[in-house]
Amino acid sequence: MSSGKGVILSGMRPTGRLHLGNYLGALKNWVKLQDEYECFFLIADWHALMSEYERADRLRENSLDMLCVWLASGLDPERCVMFRQSDICQHLELFFILSALTPVSWLERCPTYKEAVENSSTKDIANYAFLGYPALQAADIALYRAGHVPVGVDQLPHLEFTREIVRRFNNFYGGDLIPEPEPVLTEVVKLSGTDSRKMSKSYGNTILITEEPKELSRKINSMVTDPGRARASDPGNPEICTVFEYHKIFSPEALPAVESACRNAERGCVACKKELGLNLEKLISPIREKYLYYKENSDKVTKILEEGNSRASSRARENMRIFRKAMRYE
Amino acid sequence: MSSGKGVILSGMRPTGRLHLGNYLGALKNWVKLQDEYECFFLIADWHALMSEYERADRLRENSLDMLCVWLASGLDPERCVMFRQSDICQHLELFFILSALTPVSWLERCPTYKEAVENSSTKDIANYAFLGYPALQAADIALYRAGHVPVGVDQLPHLEFTREIVRRFNNFYGGDLIPEPEPVLTEVVKLSGTDSRKMSKSYGNTILITEEPKELSRKINSMVTDPGRARASDPGNPEICTVFEYHKIFSPEALPAVESACRNAERGCVACKKELGLNLEKLISPIREKYLYYKENSDKVTKILEEGNSRASSRARENMRIFRKAMRYE
Repeated sequence: MSSGKGVILSGMRPTGRLHLGNYLGALKNWVKLQDEYECFFLIADWHALMSEYERADRLRENSLDMLCVWLASGLDPERCVMFRQSDICQHLELFFILSALTPVSWLERCPTYKEAVENSSTKDIANYAFLGYPALQAADIALYRAGHVPVGVDQLPHLEFTREIVRRFNNFYGGDLIPEPEPVLTEVVKLSGTDSRKMSKSYGNTILITEEPKELSRKINSMVTDPGRARASDPGNPEICTVFEYHKIFSPEALPAVESACRNAERGCVACKKELGLNLEKLISPIREKYLYYKENSDKVTKILEEGNSRASSRARENMRIFRKAMRYE
Repeated sequence: MSSGKGVILSGMRPTGRLHLGNYLGALKNWVKLQDEYECFFLIADWHALMSEYERADRLRENSLDMLCVWLASGLDPERCVMFRQSDICQHLELFFILSALTPVSWLERCPTYKEAVENSSTKDIANYAFLGYPALQAADIALYRAGHVPVGVDQLPHLEFTREIVRRFNNFYGGDLIPEPEPVLTEVVKLSGTDSRKMSKSYGNTILITEEPKELSRKINSMVTDPGRARASDPGNPEICTVFEYHKIFSPEALPAVESACRNAERGCVACKKELGLNLEKLISPIREKYLYYKENSDKVTKILEEGNSRASSRARENMRIFRKAMRYE
């Protein structure tokens, strides 16, 4: 039964350990949303399989690990539903039905498909499942009749695809069976990796949400600063410094002092990094502590997943019945 | 549990009432195969949905009607498993897994896809689901680890596709998990429609397997004969006569007499058609009788379907567990 609050669906692919980019880009926001909406958070392992099919064995472990991070970051099984896509068979069922309504040309036109296929040198992802990525995403959202989807501005085209497919489904089978989901626009905080490129697992430049203190120090010490500042006595340019970019996000109150100390050569990069490290550790340590707790109590995590699956499954079955009835395909 | 006999998987799309072409092309052969193999016969309603999505409401009714014809034609629920694809969720599950292993180019190259899209003027079938037709077919076969598939020579390319995907799956996940299915080549009896074009529902030139006697006579009387034979006293040319084509199949013993009576103008087309009608009625009437019995006892048919679904589901779950274990994705 619905709680009366608007429904939100969002998900993450369990392709590896979550990093600060994932935290700022999604998870932190999810924690807020769980009180404002009825939230369904999806461990999108079918989506992961599209590109990880050669190492399918990692997906199960990654799924549980990701759930530990979610819980540690503040997602609360009493206040939201966390579940795994491949455990709810209706995802593929609705995906298939929407697939029949999806012109191949819509998918071929999808810029993310073309881009991903062109950019992926290590993995062969020009496969049939991956071509259908946006349609599976649409099914995920539609299955819970989610009226809202948290997205960054850069993901609006994907949501537009979902809206188109939903509209088509409603046209064929009557009325406004499935809401056309609206974006809940979230502030997109772009976080560079330690080497100043985009933070990404495949670049090996991430800081984990649960990073161990030693490793955290090592990574921060390796961060790229203003290359023109050879000595601590040279004035620095914070605008081209990755450490300063991090201070902007993680040390907002100390920011004026950090900036002037750099510009006026009052403090060297090592000390500046140390301050960042302390602030990051303040954010990370309670998350890491809870994460380790859940890693040690995997039976609890399994139970939380089972309960989440059960709640998601019940909603999915209920909605699928409604859709099938409208299609007169019961 | 397997019976030790080789496993066969075959299916039909429930897109309308079965005609004599379906009977000769598949059903008659299935009846024989049910004693030689462990047979799984699939009501392929997901396959039908790809093109019939605008009239999904017909699929349920057509499924049950098709099952009545199967039973009437001699398929025996004690000797084979008859079941409905959309009731066994593992079909879409394995389909999705195989989809990740299927290069889009393999599907685009598939001649049946190109042809069907080009030839279909009334329905829009250039949809994503339809592009995946051969991969879904491969999943249907692989799910039961069928080692044999009854096909006509014209369908060998489709089977070759299944063999390629299966090989790829086995390469990734180890050994010979899924057999590469071998064709059980069946004699392809091509039956023209009453207008001498290919027999097809969309041409309105079919004779149903369960045709009522009056309708049967009407249809046979409308059949195209040698257009050069204006009067019964003219000699006819059986080689260009559709009625004679039917005699070859349905009146094999009387064939020499039928042919010489035509060539020597000893008998007119009306009488010749009458003889064909009698022979066809001999074939059709016991099937029609049983068909009407099952139509009147729909509770029995529903029960047969439920039992078939349950047997198929149990095998599908068992095999899926084996596949998932090999993928280490349990």
